[in-house]
Amino acid sequence: MNVTLGHHTRHYRTVWFEAKTNRVHLIEQRLLPHRFEIVATRDFRETARAIRDMIVRGAPAIAATAAYGLAQGVLAFRGSNLDRFTAHAESVYQTIKSARPTAVDPVNAMNQVRAVMAGGETVGEQQALALAAAEQFANESVEHCRAIGRHGAALIRRGLNVLTHCNAGWLACVDLGTATAPIYTAQAQGRKFHVFCDETRPRCQGSTLTAWELAQQGVPHHVIADNAAGHLMQRGEIDLVIVGSDRVLGRTGEVANKIGTYTKAVLAHRHGIPFYVAIPLSTIDWTLKRGFDIPIEEREEAEVLGAWGVVRGSRFKVQGSKLGQRVFVQVGNPTSGARNPGFDVTPPELITGIITPAGILKPKELWPRRRELGW
Amino acid sequence: MNVTLGHHTRHYRTVWFEAKTNRVHLIEQRLLPHRFEIVATRDFRETARAIRDMIVRGAPAIAATAAYGLAQGVLAFRGSNLDRFTAHAESVYQTIKSARPTAVDPVNAMNQVRAVMAGGETVGEQQALALAAAEQFANESVEHCRAIGRHGAALIRRGLNVLTHCNAGWLACVDLGTATAPIYTAQAQGRKFHVFCDETRPRCQGSTLTAWELAQQGVPHHVIADNAAGHLMQRGEIDLVIVGSDRVLGRTGEVANKIGTYTKAVLAHRHGIPFYVAIPLSTIDWTLKRGFDIPIEEREEAEVLGAWGVVRGSRFKVQGSKLGQRVFVQVGNPTSGARNPGFDVTPPELITGIITPAGILKPKELWPRRRELGW
Repeated sequence: MNVTLGHHTRHYRTVWFEAKTNRVHLIEQRLLPHRFEIVATRDFRETARAIRDMIVRGAPAIAATAAYGLAQGVLAFRGSNLDRFTAHAESVYQTIKSARPTAVDPVNAMNQVRAVMAGGETVGEQQALALAAAEQFANESVEHCRAIGRHGAALIRRGLNVLTHCNAGWLACVDLGTATAPIYTAQAQGRKFHVFCDETRPRCQGSTLTAWELAQQGVPHHVIADNAAGHLMQRGEIDLVIVGSDRVLGRTGEVANKIGTYTKAVLAHRHGIPFYVAIPLSTIDWTLKRGFDIPIEEREEAEVLGAWGVVRGSRFKVQGSKLGQRVFVQVGNPTSGARNPGFDVTPPELITGIITPAGILKPKELWPRRRELGW
Repeated sequence: MNVTLGHHTRHYRTVWFEAKTNRVHLIEQRLLPHRFEIVATRDFRETARAIRDMIVRGAPAIAATAAYGLAQGVLAFRGSNLDRFTAHAESVYQTIKSARPTAVDPVNAMNQVRAVMAGGETVGEQQALALAAAEQFANESVEHCRAIGRHGAALIRRGLNVLTHCNAGWLACVDLGTATAPIYTAQAQGRKFHVFCDETRPRCQGSTLTAWELAQQGVPHHVIADNAAGHLMQRGEIDLVIVGSDRVLGRTGEVANKIGTYTKAVLAHRHGIPFYVAIPLSTIDWTLKRGFDIPIEEREEAEVLGAWGVVRGSRFKVQGSKLGQRVFVQVGNPTSGARNPGFDVTPPELITGIITPAGILKPKELWPRRRELGW
């Protein structure tokens, strides 16, 4: 999507590869929204570290980064011994895999690259195929978001107020995003509407990342505290909710997503407001039988008791921090503990539709149509 | 309630008067939870300023402060000319009234003091009556909270998990609090239970004030992000909700309270969890006919886009701030706007009961029983 620095507007993906220098380029997402910087990794170890340290985040974005990282690693191999090359490729694969051991998307992405690569007969051929496969993976990922955008844009009629939660935006993908794809597509079709971004405590991905994205694209929007959506719905100020998801159960239609999603779905249901979930097909888990069995990770207590931000104004200066560098402030009572579940599960009866690259489906339609959806 | 500093535990009210020095003493609430400090105002002008600058906040606490401030002002009068004394008393009254022009409680409190004072025939008698009336006002305010606590404590059975929102605690009152009175009373009765405090963005009164209160009283508790209550209810981890209120409509049973209260009521209703509102009778508005007509103040956008906290750790030091002094950090995207409604309105069908000093009532019982409730 577009990023404007000074007077200069440029189109960026979250991750791209420069073959000439064998570098993977990434937006340094930890500095947003306060600073925009590009990181170029010099080898696959640096790429793995960028994944581990969350310079890049969001399943589709990590997946593409892993695919490029594998290509980067095998392209650095010098020589023509295929056995040695294969051993090297395996070591690259394992290094990148171990950067985020619980994530499934980077592994799937690297498996695709590896399968294509295996069709080459020489080291050179395999190297060329790895690069082509990584590029194809990233391009297909963007194509999925484009298809989500095409299907979802029709929901955003002129003048509507759309609520979104957390960041399922282009920063989490290679481009366009999932929940944001209908928004950017409707905007490109010339429609005027307005977006409310939930702040999304405790990590504030809504007020930091989604709000930054929308501001860069010129989409009219306001950030709200997570507490405010219910009141706005009650007053008729929200017409449509679109969120992303970390995992949709193909068997039940249940949706796991960032903590607070369930609350918004309950509120939308009470007010008769349509509630949509936008996902690529790779987000569907066809094996798990019950949403209750989705592991809900408890994150650290400090996130709830504090916040990351930059100190502004002339009254205060933070020593030891660069301009625009974020610091952590303790907000809540330091002798209190906190509970910090990272995700929640929304049942299918609260979900109007699931926007996929294959069209908009009812949650209960997933399982009967599992064959055409790739299961 | 109790406050422990070092090894020393003492009982405090939020506001008290020292006749010997003619000073009003207040807890400096803007420094909590990071520092506990007492402010002693030297004259009624300083007391008015303390109200205006929110050293003290919460309707019952401000009301008692205004009552003491009026007594402080009239006690400072030297001479025996009753006309001059009365003019002086009027000027004190107006100065304190203008400190928070929209608040109705300080005016009601001062009217009570003034009415009692008028019974005196000399300056000395009126001064003595003013002080006695202010003390009585504060003591009655505590009595109301005690009665709320007696009625409400029966709801908190052993082992329950209680959710509360914002701060309707003793810091907002003279002592004990409204929503917290049942909690402290049940604890004093020896019952074991656990409290979840909503963080209550954007001003975080839950994670700062309520969590500090509960920690000081030794009530087991955890802070949660406002997003987390729905998930915890879904998993059966919340049994009871108790909140305070800024205004309850006597005619309809609607409840205006801190933004996010409505959301919690909707969630509790869905999960069959009892939802109670604890208030003194002075919170009931007998005149307004529709909750929709309650003015919902929009606060400043910066609150939503940032947070107040203290910078901790050796890595960063904030120049120009004293140890433990709070600084404001910009969290969200600085080029985005925000909507920041301060309150919302919960309809009576979502409210199990209203805990008053006169007992626990259904929202729809208020109007038929208006005579005995003081209308």
